[in-house]
Amino acid sequence: MFRRLPSIEEARRLLKKSYTPKPLGKEQVSLSEALNRILAEDIAASIEVPPFNRSTVDGYAVRAEDTFGADEDRPKKLKICGRVNVGETPTVKVERGMAAEIFTGAPLSSGADSVVMVENTTRRGDTVLIHEAVSRRENVMKAGSDIRRGETILRKGQKLSPREVGVLAALGIAKVKVHKRPRAAVLSTGAEVVEPGNPLPDGKIYDINAHALSAAVWECGGEPLNMGIVQDEPQRMEAALRNALHSADVVITSGGVSVGPTDIIPKVLNALGKPGVIVYGIAMKPGKPTTIAVVDRKPVFSLPGHPASALLAFHLFVRPVIIAMSGGREEAPNVVRATTATKIFSARGRRTFVTVNLKRDKSGRFVASPVPLGLSGAITTLAKADGFIEIHESRQFVDAGEEVTVWLFKQSPLE
Amino acid sequence: MFRRLPSIEEARRLLKKSYTPKPLGKEQVSLSEALNRILAEDIAASIEVPPFNRSTVDGYAVRAEDTFGADEDRPKKLKICGRVNVGETPTVKVERGMAAEIFTGAPLSSGADSVVMVENTTRRGDTVLIHEAVSRRENVMKAGSDIRRGETILRKGQKLSPREVGVLAALGIAKVKVHKRPRAAVLSTGAEVVEPGNPLPDGKIYDINAHALSAAVWECGGEPLNMGIVQDEPQRMEAALRNALHSADVVITSGGVSVGPTDIIPKVLNALGKPGVIVYGIAMKPGKPTTIAVVDRKPVFSLPGHPASALLAFHLFVRPVIIAMSGGREEAPNVVRATTATKIFSARGRRTFVTVNLKRDKSGRFVASPVPLGLSGAITTLAKADGFIEIHESRQFVDAGEEVTVWLFKQSPLE
Repeated sequence: MFRRLPSIEEARRLLKKSYTPKPLGKEQVSLSEALNRILAEDIAASIEVPPFNRSTVDGYAVRAEDTFGADEDRPKKLKICGRVNVGETPTVKVERGMAAEIFTGAPLSSGADSVVMVENTTRRGDTVLIHEAVSRRENVMKAGSDIRRGETILRKGQKLSPREVGVLAALGIAKVKVHKRPRAAVLSTGAEVVEPGNPLPDGKIYDINAHALSAAVWECGGEPLNMGIVQDEPQRMEAALRNALHSADVVITSGGVSVGPTDIIPKVLNALGKPGVIVYGIAMKPGKPTTIAVVDRKPVFSLPGHPASALLAFHLFVRPVIIAMSGGREEAPNVVRATTATKIFSARGRRTFVTVNLKRDKSGRFVASPVPLGLSGAITTLAKADGFIEIHESRQFVDAGEEVTVWLFKQSPLE
Repeated sequence: MFRRLPSIEEARRLLKKSYTPKPLGKEQVSLSEALNRILAEDIAASIEVPPFNRSTVDGYAVRAEDTFGADEDRPKKLKICGRVNVGETPTVKVERGMAAEIFTGAPLSSGADSVVMVENTTRRGDTVLIHEAVSRRENVMKAGSDIRRGETILRKGQKLSPREVGVLAALGIAKVKVHKRPRAAVLSTGAEVVEPGNPLPDGKIYDINAHALSAAVWECGGEPLNMGIVQDEPQRMEAALRNALHSADVVITSGGVSVGPTDIIPKVLNALGKPGVIVYGIAMKPGKPTTIAVVDRKPVFSLPGHPASALLAFHLFVRPVIIAMSGGREEAPNVVRATTATKIFSARGRRTFVTVNLKRDKSGRFVASPVPLGLSGAITTLAKADGFIEIHESRQFVDAGEEVTVWLFKQSPLE
């Protein structure tokens, strides 16, 4: 009953010994479905971008040396030998003393090496006066200057933002291989929980966790399978976990664990397959009852019933596994530095997480005030807080005015 | 030809005079579809959370005064009068000198005001020895302590994260009213652009913008309608823009504008409805040809053809409008402070945006090095850069070593 619980890092090491998350299979998606997916292949350019020397202005394609010395007073006169429209292959060749009319985005005519902007020219019938000299390659975007053929331009494991979608389009790629989203079965346990949308009998509460955790799964790139509420009873629990392990790549339960000898979930997990439960409680607050099992090479995370504890444990243990299974890279956390408004005590011998609100002081620096979660791990407190601070188990408190790192829930603490 | 172009702020004011974005209609979604949607109603609690006084531990429900003075040596002996299971309405009343067995999450029996943890008790048949006194309300979460009935707990305009989804579930709400996503028609123009996935004829390039801009629309909460490539020809352009205005709430074109008198798009827009084009070129670099029109009370943004210019102009002008139409609030931008590695010149008289890469110096501070976009607004340069800096039109350069704000493309510049 009073055994020493592993620290967060020890718990992660124990999990790693029995289970290493690997990217799942690949699937092909079109560009319109590619946003925020994780690339499952290196992308090497099969063409040059742009594919030809391209004029960047409207004007006249010329040989630069024919313009040398030109200025307002002594323009150079060139003979117009033709016209290159945008999207066409130029048929005209620019010989010495000649110029071809050209438009922004059109391919440079052969013979020409530069383009004079139309603003610096005067048209006179089939000749043009050049009022300003250009140097070689001026106003020309060289073939391959954006992307060289053969260049590996995107790499496996990159998350596709609008900019990477643009790179794929530039190469003419309409379909791309991305990693499959890991499927995460989410189930809530407890005799007291009722599905939202139904009447609430006496003694019951609405199920928060299946919904909040499913949303959290989406947010880190997984596909939640919300399996609803399972009664805390061995046969039903076994059937539900079997089904979850069959349908999903990772299983998340919440509630029904309290690091006590009567808990059903750990017993069922141990009976379902090897190695079974490998972490049974973690030295953290909140989140102490968090239990981790591996059954048939799939991880099962049994999170506490309190919503704030469940979301914190999700963040620390489940999210990194889902991201690794999705082939992605963990993003650097969104943190700010702040000073604490008050002395904040930790739970003795346990890593303590304290939700805080941020304000700016007169000099514009962040000040973090603790928002106690109370006994309950209240969901509203969590929704109102800006982020949390972490106090190491070796420390008894953080002093007032001490500088701390705040892990933000939101993009920005002060919208 | 040499008229003065409006600044970015003037362009925004001109748009505002003719068009104020308003949230579109509402729609009802289930909790599983609610993540990242914008709430279209205030949410007031119709129940208390928790709905009853709830035990937060396994143990015995007691009257606190019956435990006063109890310690290891002189425990208090109480008579067990019953048991309260989780999810049940307690039928037992705890009278003076009595205790009811209770479990975490179960409603407190009437008469009792606190719970003694099982660890601090010894069971003796139908009596229990209490080894530690409790105070009133100890180990009890009071009804309504998380959410009070009637409290407005979420507000219109909030974006729903997993935490807010949890709050909705806590209140038993299974369906919620959110704002409709603004539909943004996206079309590319130009004789030279070809849809990715097709062969690339000579003189052509693949269309980047329709794909990158559609992804950017998604990213800020809109629903892109990718209408593909439209030829730069008046009748076709008119038909395409009419169709786009009919199908969507906002229209985005790219290419085909160069602030020249021969441009087709502005002419067509002026012919389609009042007031037509209201901003025709903006004093910025890149992005100068950006043209803004309002036709039949819908905004039309005609962005430059160069992908980097198009994405920048989208960010500055289109994104805020889409966010406002979606009923949301603009998030604070993700910025870091950095010093510049080199002197960076601006374009005379135009707001200049320079893409940069970030590194950390020995002291851990960010140093920003410019990544020239070149003449082309190359998409790969954009994909490789960490963010951009903005140089005001009143300045000719930013000096080497000067402190600047870098607007990040990514969550974190150094993954």
